Amino acid sequence: MTVASNARSPAASPEMLAAIDMGSNSFHMVVARVVHGEIRTVEKMGEKVQLGAGLDQKNRLTDDARQRGLDCLKRFAQRLEGMPPQAVQIVGTNALRVARNAPDFIAEAEKVLGYPVEIIAGREEARLIYLGVSHTLSDDEGKRLVIDIGGGSTEFIIGERFEPEELESLHMGCVSFRNRYFPDGRISKRQMDRAITHAEQELLNIRQHYRSVGWKSAVGSSGSIKAIANVLAQLKLTDGGITLEAMEELRKRLISMGKVEKLDDLGVRAERQSIFPAGFAILLAAFRSLDIEDMTFADGALREGLLYDIIGRICHEDVRERTITALQKRYHVDQAHGGAVEETAIAAWEQVADQWGLRTDADEDVLRWACRLHEIGLTISHSQYHKHGAYLLRYSDLPGFSQQFQKDLATLVRGHRRKFSQAVFEDIDDPGDKPRLRYLCVLVRLAVLIQHPRNQEAPPDFILQGGDNHLVVEFPSGWLENRPLTLADLKNERDYLTKQDFTLDIRSRE
Amino acid sequence: MTVASNARSPAASPEMLAAIDMGSNSFHMVVARVVHGEIRTVEKMGEKVQLGAGLDQKNRLTDDARQRGLDCLKRFAQRLEGMPPQAVQIVGTNALRVARNAPDFIAEAEKVLGYPVEIIAGREEARLIYLGVSHTLSDDEGKRLVIDIGGGSTEFIIGERFEPEELESLHMGCVSFRNRYFPDGRISKRQMDRAITHAEQELLNIRQHYRSVGWKSAVGSSGSIKAIANVLAQLKLTDGGITLEAMEELRKRLISMGKVEKLDDLGVRAERQSIFPAGFAILLAAFRSLDIEDMTFADGALREGLLYDIIGRICHEDVRERTITALQKRYHVDQAHGGAVEETAIAAWEQVADQWGLRTDADEDVLRWACRLHEIGLTISHSQYHKHGAYLLRYSDLPGFSQQFQKDLATLVRGHRRKFSQAVFEDIDDPGDKPRLRYLCVLVRLAVLIQHPRNQEAPPDFILQGGDNHLVVEFPSGWLENRPLTLADLKNERDYLTKQDFTLDIRSRE
Repeated sequence: MTVASNARSPAASPEMLAAIDMGSNSFHMVVARVVHGEIRTVEKMGEKVQLGAGLDQKNRLTDDARQRGLDCLKRFAQRLEGMPPQAVQIVGTNALRVARNAPDFIAEAEKVLGYPVEIIAGREEARLIYLGVSHTLSDDEGKRLVIDIGGGSTEFIIGERFEPEELESLHMGCVSFRNRYFPDGRISKRQMDRAITHAEQELLNIRQHYRSVGWKSAVGSSGSIKAIANVLAQLKLTDGGITLEAMEELRKRLISMGKVEKLDDLGVRAERQSIFPAGFAILLAAFRSLDIEDMTFADGALREGLLYDIIGRICHEDVRERTITALQKRYHVDQAHGGAVEETAIAAWEQVADQWGLRTDADEDVLRWACRLHEIGLTISHSQYHKHGAYLLRYSDLPGFSQQFQKDLATLVRGHRRKFSQAVFEDIDDPGDKPRLRYLCVLVRLAVLIQHPRNQEAPPDFILQGGDNHLVVEFPSGWLENRPLTLADLKNERDYLTKQDFTLDIRSRE
Repeated sequence: MTVASNARSPAASPEMLAAIDMGSNSFHMVVARVVHGEIRTVEKMGEKVQLGAGLDQKNRLTDDARQRGLDCLKRFAQRLEGMPPQAVQIVGTNALRVARNAPDFIAEAEKVLGYPVEIIAGREEARLIYLGVSHTLSDDEGKRLVIDIGGGSTEFIIGERFEPEELESLHMGCVSFRNRYFPDGRISKRQMDRAITHAEQELLNIRQHYRSVGWKSAVGSSGSIKAIANVLAQLKLTDGGITLEAMEELRKRLISMGKVEKLDDLGVRAERQSIFPAGFAILLAAFRSLDIEDMTFADGALREGLLYDIIGRICHEDVRERTITALQKRYHVDQAHGGAVEETAIAAWEQVADQWGLRTDADEDVLRWACRLHEIGLTISHSQYHKHGAYLLRYSDLPGFSQQFQKDLATLVRGHRRKFSQAVFEDIDDPGDKPRLRYLCVLVRLAVLIQHPRNQEAPPDFILQGGDNHLVVEFPSGWLENRPLTLADLKNERDYLTKQDFTLDIRSRE
């Protein structure tokens, strides 16, 4: 089942927003009120679901972990009741990125919540974290480094004011490191050093580049970093900040403690104790590798970023539009041609969207953007360029897009020419999405075909009638007669669609 | 079995060169002598193998077609005897691009010929055709359009002097069109018009762009175009050239003839008659779509292009080096880092190439270029970038590279990090290539790992000893001790390789 997605109509600007972040360690919900474009938090809820710890050997969520997650979402769901869909954003991060049975979990979660759920890529997570953190910091000059240690990944962002410049997500987190280096709650020197070395190896990938870009201040923004700052203050090693010197000292003390339970005395809550040394090892490695001297803690994080992202979409500062334009430029897409195809597809969409039950803004968005980008694969090769385009759209880091949305875009680009084959729709996780994507794909194909002569002609004054796996297109009198190649293309298209039980009926007005 | 590939040592500059072009319609061989960098043809041989017509419903070469091809190659092979490998280039085009069992055929062909055989992509074919044609034309100013109608594809190139600017290969050829529109030798108005319309539809893909680039003169260069020029002259419609007016007139006459056998009277050889109307339809569509008024015929073609390509490699004007540099720039690859990895890999290669039986220039080339390009996939996403890089290298149009070479490059990039898994080598067509690529891959991985700190340090003074699925690396005294992260990386690497039955033995000199 597809649930209506975020609309971006300014008329629908809601007063209350909500965001849920399904992390590898905890699930969090924040509900907020929008006041003059600023966010006032109304309520925060968090539960330590430990989805990441509930992955089995084959990277499948165990039944237990699924149940823990769904139970938590049931509690959150009550708080969401009655909110318009465009006011809610719900995302999953690393544990759901790697879980092979994530699509099943997502489908169940959507049923429980009644809102769409998206899995976001590591860099998108980093972008949203920066958005959240930057809104809670004073509007200083100069670059900042933001570090967020999650359960399954750690994000490193360099940005200035509200603009991220460098976004990286490394595959190390406090849950995965706990499982690997501190599974039994003991803290030995050997295991601590191995964990730090592992994190330093991961950091080699970005170290040189991040150091050369540089920053003026360093900010940490996760539960792990907050707990470390608290412990350092408790031990009177700092006044609430984090310094390299204090971190090195804490390393020795953790080793001499030897057991995570002793963190009790330092005010670390029971459910955080087991992951504390893992988060600590990652942060110390970051201090060493990136030559950080001190760091402050900031409260904003992924879920606050989600709220600011919703506001951005509502105010028509949709970061996704910027992403699409950047892609067009980067891969030298013929923008005039893409625009003509978009205009033609939308002229058709307006006539059949209701008839086909396609009426959400998200459907219109994916149709528009697929048209603009349908030739992106030409950058690789003319041969099979629809497949290359689908590959680029599926796997590129696209700021503002969820992985599911990227898959939908990729599906439409993959299916925009040649055979309208089963294979195009094979990859769709939720079988309920297939009819919707088939209909959208028919519209992209029709628009591409009408614009085949590439002369940017305005769309014809056609009349469309959509039915169940059926489309009637009636062209103005004389229009087809003057375009024998388009007529031949339409006949081919009819044959392609017929093979997949879709009837295309081409008519000429009297 | 892998046969030694084209070497590029200037010392080996041979006096005689040979090229074989295994086309969809005919196989051709040309043997030539190099005189002051120019080519003097010594011998030409051609046989109408009709490989393209020997593809069954599932795009597999039938046993008959394979046998026809191998028999022809046996005859060619005799003429090649004793020539050094760097003096011979043998390529397959469209029929072998689409045949699913092409790898089997290639393996048999290499056995018969004793030289490596490569399948080239459409644009690479176009580049080589232009190279061949441009060397047979006078050194005029101004852009030229070159059209070459093959059995399974038609190439359209715009270039000036020896430099191609636009390269396209469209999926239509005289064999595939004959099978579709003129299978029984009859020429009806209806079928002729359908064939022309089909070709015009294909041309829509390039029409607008090619017209906007423009050209001063148009040149045709295939057997099909030669035959058309001859028929027009025979009919006294032209003086040996080809004009749009004459083409339109010939269309009427072909339809009134009604049967291909009547082409006998116009001097068309028996084996060309059946494909004549198909080639004619494609050329007329090109004249109409691209607004060509007249065209001359030129003799050079793919096989002459292959000869000039060999000379280029021997004279160190290797077009492939240019392609690699262009890729690095286009995808913003860190060239300094790639260079450091290359230098390290080559330092290792020089010690173990003989021990592992890797001694051809082609092996060294693929190793060097894989190192330079190993990070190319970062342009798409950091996550899984080795896979993205492999995708780009496998499917991009890379001037100068055969499809097999691109696959090898892609394999090394795919395998340069993370697991050294079976999956990396699964795609290799020829099982005999697997050990070779595994050894090369180990060298790339070792070099990437040593350069992991990205500080462009010179390679260490290491001593390598290669054995059967075995490598001993001895580092200078103290070198590893000062680099604990590299040591940790090497230990990980040892575990990765062990899982695939490859032993890595890391030592420190006393």
